[in-house]
Amino acid sequence: MRVKDETKQQALFEATVKVVNEIGFASSSVAKIAKEAGISPATIYIYHENKEDLLVSTYIEIKKGMGRALLQGFDTSMPIRDIFMMVWRNGFEHVSKHRADFHFTEQFANSPFIDLVDMEEVNKYFETIYQVIQRGIDEKIIKDVSFEILGVFMFYPMLILSNKRHCSGFALTDENIETAFNMAWDAIKL
Amino acid sequence: MRVKDETKQQALFEATVKVVNEIGFASSSVAKIAKEAGISPATIYIYHENKEDLLVSTYIEIKKGMGRALLQGFDTSMPIRDIFMMVWRNGFEHVSKHRADFHFTEQFANSPFIDLVDMEEVNKYFETIYQVIQRGIDEKIIKDVSFEILGVFMFYPMLILSNKRHCSGFALTDENIETAFNMAWDAIKL
Repeated sequence: MRVKDETKQQALFEATVKVVNEIGFASSSVAKIAKEAGISPATIYIYHENKEDLLVSTYIEIKKGMGRALLQGFDTSMPIRDIFMMVWRNGFEHVSKHRADFHFTEQFANSPFIDLVDMEEVNKYFETIYQVIQRGIDEKIIKDVSFEILGVFMFYPMLILSNKRHCSGFALTDENIETAFNMAWDAIKL
Repeated sequence: MRVKDETKQQALFEATVKVVNEIGFASSSVAKIAKEAGISPATIYIYHENKEDLLVSTYIEIKKGMGRALLQGFDTSMPIRDIFMMVWRNGFEHVSKHRADFHFTEQFANSPFIDLVDMEEVNKYFETIYQVIQRGIDEKIIKDVSFEILGVFMFYPMLILSNKRHCSGFALTDENIETAFNMAWDAIKL
């Protein structure tokens, strides 16, 4: 029986992010990632069919963690604006603590590997947020435009601003985070 | 005397984008880029000291082209909102025609190479736009927040939405582009 070991899986995802961020997708091999993780390549193949599967699984794992982090303290009875403010703050907190992961996902999203991702699986982790957005649209609080456009104004600015490499001039102070949130809210509110 | 040939330079930038997008920064060598461009490596070294200089120059060249494209039809006497609407439309037009270039710049901005860029030189190409923003702030039309935060709401959504790989669900219709512009404007206007 093949027992999947959570700790090993975690080490593997971290090694994938580290190796890819250092030497890029093309040069990253299962052998190099195995070495970084301190796991034998044979063991990796228990978990992942090939390099592509390992990269895709790492991307999905990061998205899953993000989805979970965004919802910390979530309470469906809160006003919509407060829910988004909380999601926004959770996002800054999470991304600023996991910058390497988000360098990886940004590179990944600009690579051909993104086409291998089952977006329905990724969207599942953000379903609760989508439901809040839909509620906001139904209650005429949020503009009735596609989730995709709303996301670009609601979530990308947070991703970009919490990522130091892009924004050396943006200090992650409460005041700056609130200023940026108010702008995101102005963009999406009706 | 070393004569720099514009056509060769252009072929070189295009080859750099192509090779890097295909195999990543780490695997891209001057030799491979030279081969793609149909130029001898020795000739490349007339223009660029090393691989890093070639990558940085390519990044700056794309930014320069973007700065020029955004300002097409620019007229300082136009109302601020109309100027931004024009800049926004120019941006969609330009990025959607040069997607490979913007895959390159996004990867580049998430790589350590970004630290080698003289940001003052890059900012020079957007100076006219910065002046319009400052005018908007002075006239109390635009929120008095840092250019960095304004840019995140004003320009990144355009970059993301005009880049198909991110946004498969966003059709580049006039209506969608205007909807997104209105949201960006809501974010930055006072």
